[in-house]
Amino acid sequence: MRSGPRGGDAIDAAVSARDAVGFVAVSSGSDPTSRYLTGREFDCDLAYVRVDGETHLRVPSTVEPPALSVASVRVDDRPPGKAAAAVLAEHGAPGGTVLAPRTVPHDAALHLESAGYDLASTAAVEAARAVKDAAERDAVEATQRAATRGVGRAAAILASTVEGADEGDGDGGDGDGEPPVLHWDGAPLSTERLRRQVNARLAAEGVDSAGATAVRAGTRGDAGEPVELRPGEPIVVSVGPRGPTGYRGALARTFVVDPDGGWERRAHVACDAARKVSLVEADPGDDAGFLGSELRAETAAFGFSMADEVTRDVGGGIGLAAREDPPLDGDCELVAGNVLRVRAAVTHPDHGRVELTDVLVVGDDGPRLLGDAPTGLDPSRW
Amino acid sequence: MRSGPRGGDAIDAAVSARDAVGFVAVSSGSDPTSRYLTGREFDCDLAYVRVDGETHLRVPSTVEPPALSVASVRVDDRPPGKAAAAVLAEHGAPGGTVLAPRTVPHDAALHLESAGYDLASTAAVEAARAVKDAAERDAVEATQRAATRGVGRAAAILASTVEGADEGDGDGGDGDGEPPVLHWDGAPLSTERLRRQVNARLAAEGVDSAGATAVRAGTRGDAGEPVELRPGEPIVVSVGPRGPTGYRGALARTFVVDPDGGWERRAHVACDAARKVSLVEADPGDDAGFLGSELRAETAAFGFSMADEVTRDVGGGIGLAAREDPPLDGDCELVAGNVLRVRAAVTHPDHGRVELTDVLVVGDDGPRLLGDAPTGLDPSRW
Repeated sequence: MRSGPRGGDAIDAAVSARDAVGFVAVSSGSDPTSRYLTGREFDCDLAYVRVDGETHLRVPSTVEPPALSVASVRVDDRPPGKAAAAVLAEHGAPGGTVLAPRTVPHDAALHLESAGYDLASTAAVEAARAVKDAAERDAVEATQRAATRGVGRAAAILASTVEGADEGDGDGGDGDGEPPVLHWDGAPLSTERLRRQVNARLAAEGVDSAGATAVRAGTRGDAGEPVELRPGEPIVVSVGPRGPTGYRGALARTFVVDPDGGWERRAHVACDAARKVSLVEADPGDDAGFLGSELRAETAAFGFSMADEVTRDVGGGIGLAAREDPPLDGDCELVAGNVLRVRAAVTHPDHGRVELTDVLVVGDDGPRLLGDAPTGLDPSRW
Repeated sequence: MRSGPRGGDAIDAAVSARDAVGFVAVSSGSDPTSRYLTGREFDCDLAYVRVDGETHLRVPSTVEPPALSVASVRVDDRPPGKAAAAVLAEHGAPGGTVLAPRTVPHDAALHLESAGYDLASTAAVEAARAVKDAAERDAVEATQRAATRGVGRAAAILASTVEGADEGDGDGGDGDGEPPVLHWDGAPLSTERLRRQVNARLAAEGVDSAGATAVRAGTRGDAGEPVELRPGEPIVVSVGPRGPTGYRGALARTFVVDPDGGWERRAHVACDAARKVSLVEADPGDDAGFLGSELRAETAAFGFSMADEVTRDVGGGIGLAAREDPPLDGDCELVAGNVLRVRAAVTHPDHGRVELTDVLVVGDDGPRLLGDAPTGLDPSRW
């Protein structure tokens, strides 16, 4: 799927401000940067060159050069750095400073340097990507709606489970003091079975699970091996799908079937309170790092250890990448158009994890949480 | 999900052969190279350092350092290139040549150089990745089985369609000479509706669609906009899922509902013949580029133009990446353990595309196609 090419104006401004002759990005065509700059995904490595206010793309001959609204898209089987240097030379820039992302592949940098260009790094694209336009915000919101339905599918399944014997170990279950497990649709419900159901729902909603769906049961299953779900333990269902134009969503909810009202309830109150902090600390002009530390401090205020229990990953920018600018641990200022993943989580070695993750848009009028996913622990109240 | 760390021996051999002191890779943790070297996916940028026959990883403080069977996994919030230089210095290598992939990020290369190391590029990891061990081949095969079920879902749906009026344009369909469209489950079947059904099946099979599922109808839908499927046109269903340990599959089949037996039948015979070429030209010792050109030549032999109709993308290595070594357009020799995507396709501006894509393992005893997907045009004979 396509959206439009973006970032040209920001690049032109950076090129002009630094007296450069152009900008080069070299990356795999599925990379978020190239997806942002070209508006679509390519199934190959790609050289993107911005020179004289126009965009030129060079692709290898193994793909069809696509029709795109840029100045030129041509096949060039030389290494992308060489192909990029040729474009610059063709368009009136036989030498001078060329801007590139700091992570430009080293071989491409060397090709440009040996062709007579001085390389200087720029964060212009990351900065542009961090501020979403209306179409980008809509794309994230659409993905987030699908994410809500995916997690909702898990809630519906969990709400219709019944307790049964653990059949997996062959020793007869309950009689031996084995805890009961949750059954659904006639069989024990494992983390993997639930994960697949969530992913099937995401697929039916037209988004890709992006390998980001996880189901965590209590203190078990961290090694990625499926385990059967049990009543009373916190079950974290976490998704991070990718929509048809590449924009990501992020949603995590924690459910407990037949809770005993202990640790997980207190942890949930803390996470829910932290989540609400994001709605008062995420105005344009607020400090992103302060928001991040407030999320942690609010969680800790309910009696959890900052060092051991409160998560360090409180989120950050989300868009074409699941993690992008702005980070919530730096000193940058939030601006209208930032889209943030905000995450509140508490982990305990004996109890497991409680987590709430949402996506928030920083608007001119303040922050707005996307989607309408309920936050409660009880899956039957989704 | 985890598999084991790989590539250490190949790196050690390259380090030793080139009198280097170590090897450094810096990448996003979801990158195929870092997934190969560490055996798992990381949700962050990652510095991988191999020095003195041992592996060390450095990750930022926003993630929990995972338990892995390597010499050290530690948090280091410096830029990954600096963190890598510190590891080298700590382990008895205060200077000297350091090997790195040629696409190491330029900033990491500069950090290593300013710490006193000479950088030299190596393709040792790509070369190691191109030869799959038994566990990797099994992983690709498991993904390919799921791919077969995903495409099989499309076949089952297409086989149960009925012809109906095109309701989409509001002008009443047939009466105006609009061609009929295929209906399924009470509504017109679009490329997007079919794609979602395939993806839901892939998800239920436990694999990720990886954004690689495409449904192409005749000459329409190239722009990514959904179109309603019609009888008589070739419908290409193409999947490239990612399994739980990251290994990809690739399968494409072409179906026609109510064929009129024209162009698409001849194109299908050509693609099927080309596909069979891969079973006689893919022994250990055969030339990979020759296999590629034979695939094209065999397709063209049925009367299709090499320049305009026969695809240039005939495939290449597949593994943790959908496209990796060996390429089928170079002059490298196939070896046992190579796993190849082989693709035969013919495209015509008036008729559309016919395509057959499979995955093949080059074994000691010769090539073997993975999976048992039927190849025919008739979806009811799947």
